[in-house]
Amino acid sequence: MGELILTTFDWVPDGPRGFVRDLRIRWALEEAGLPYSVASTPFRERGPAHFAHQPFGQAPWLTDGDLSIFESGAILLHLGELSDKLMPKDRRGRSDAKEWLFAALASVEAASQPWSFFMFSGDAGQTPMRKFFDDFLYQHRLKHMETVLAGGDWLAGTFSVADILMADVLRLVNRFDGLANYPACRAYVARATARPAFVKAHADQMAHFAAAD
Amino acid sequence: MGELILTTFDWVPDGPRGFVRDLRIRWALEEAGLPYSVASTPFRERGPAHFAHQPFGQAPWLTDGDLSIFESGAILLHLGELSDKLMPKDRRGRSDAKEWLFAALASVEAASQPWSFFMFSGDAGQTPMRKFFDDFLYQHRLKHMETVLAGGDWLAGTFSVADILMADVLRLVNRFDGLANYPACRAYVARATARPAFVKAHADQMAHFAAAD
Repeated sequence: MGELILTTFDWVPDGPRGFVRDLRIRWALEEAGLPYSVASTPFRERGPAHFAHQPFGQAPWLTDGDLSIFESGAILLHLGELSDKLMPKDRRGRSDAKEWLFAALASVEAASQPWSFFMFSGDAGQTPMRKFFDDFLYQHRLKHMETVLAGGDWLAGTFSVADILMADVLRLVNRFDGLANYPACRAYVARATARPAFVKAHADQMAHFAAAD
Repeated sequence: MGELILTTFDWVPDGPRGFVRDLRIRWALEEAGLPYSVASTPFRERGPAHFAHQPFGQAPWLTDGDLSIFESGAILLHLGELSDKLMPKDRRGRSDAKEWLFAALASVEAASQPWSFFMFSGDAGQTPMRKFFDDFLYQHRLKHMETVLAGGDWLAGTFSVADILMADVLRLVNRFDGLANYPACRAYVARATARPAFVKAHADQMAHFAAAD
């Protein structure tokens, strides 16, 4: 392992504060107790140096010595492979953690992100597409997550990077009251965000952006 | 490695044939030359045995001895770790392949999937949400993928599981003519789908569903 540097935006508007994806990485680094520093990249002017690390002009990215990694899921996988505190030790548990890391993104966030765009847009109507995306999230995803999360505290048996990602995805749904009918999902978010590593990561992100005001 | 069994639906309607996600796994298995068999699970009646392997009632899943893995990205990562033909050997190349595996899902498919739902719905209008999802795909994702893919044949230097996933994601965009303004993306899809392993995987999927008609 080389020196770990997490790069995020220097500033963001009030709305996304507390939800910018560097939080997932801060959280994992705090859980693992790995030493790291935080660097900033301009939010308003995104130049070639930014795109060299993150081809879509997003944040965060992590450098680990000579490696530069973007995508929060890929960074969490990398950190999970660095620390036993972020991934089970046994073959089955590790496979489950990786599977749920992908599921948090490709099954749950793939449904919750377009749903959240409708929420942000203020479209509270009953247009056919709004109804479609509501059903996609609630009936095809959260209904099943409710069953999974009613069956155990953490997705891979013990707490892992998969829980960091899934809890962060569900936290944004909860912000718009989308977990109202899913008590096991709400309890999971509460359980995950009560962890001292989350509390510190969240406070650190808020302080980082506030310092730029 | 145990015995590899890929499970997919026994039948699907005509529309998704050739695009069901078991294709990604068949493609990787053919590239690697790994021995495998294909099993079926009912499309119409999805019971507890199905949900025990895939908690959202989707397909495919892969069993590798005592491991059962769902999520096409997680299965591709697993296979990538089994075969040098699916992932570069060097540390930097492996990191790049994993990063792009996540990016194909969480950056590109996260934008192309809701866009494709609008295309399937026949909403060709200029509603604000349609416009929003068009911009999300074209301006925030494909514009940048065009730059990336103009710079090299494959995402991690040599062909990898990341290309299987990214090419399959872009292939569905291309089906709805969404790559019209992105020649490097179109050339990438053409290059990837000309590979004998893709051709065989595609033919095998079509034959699998046709056999159930």
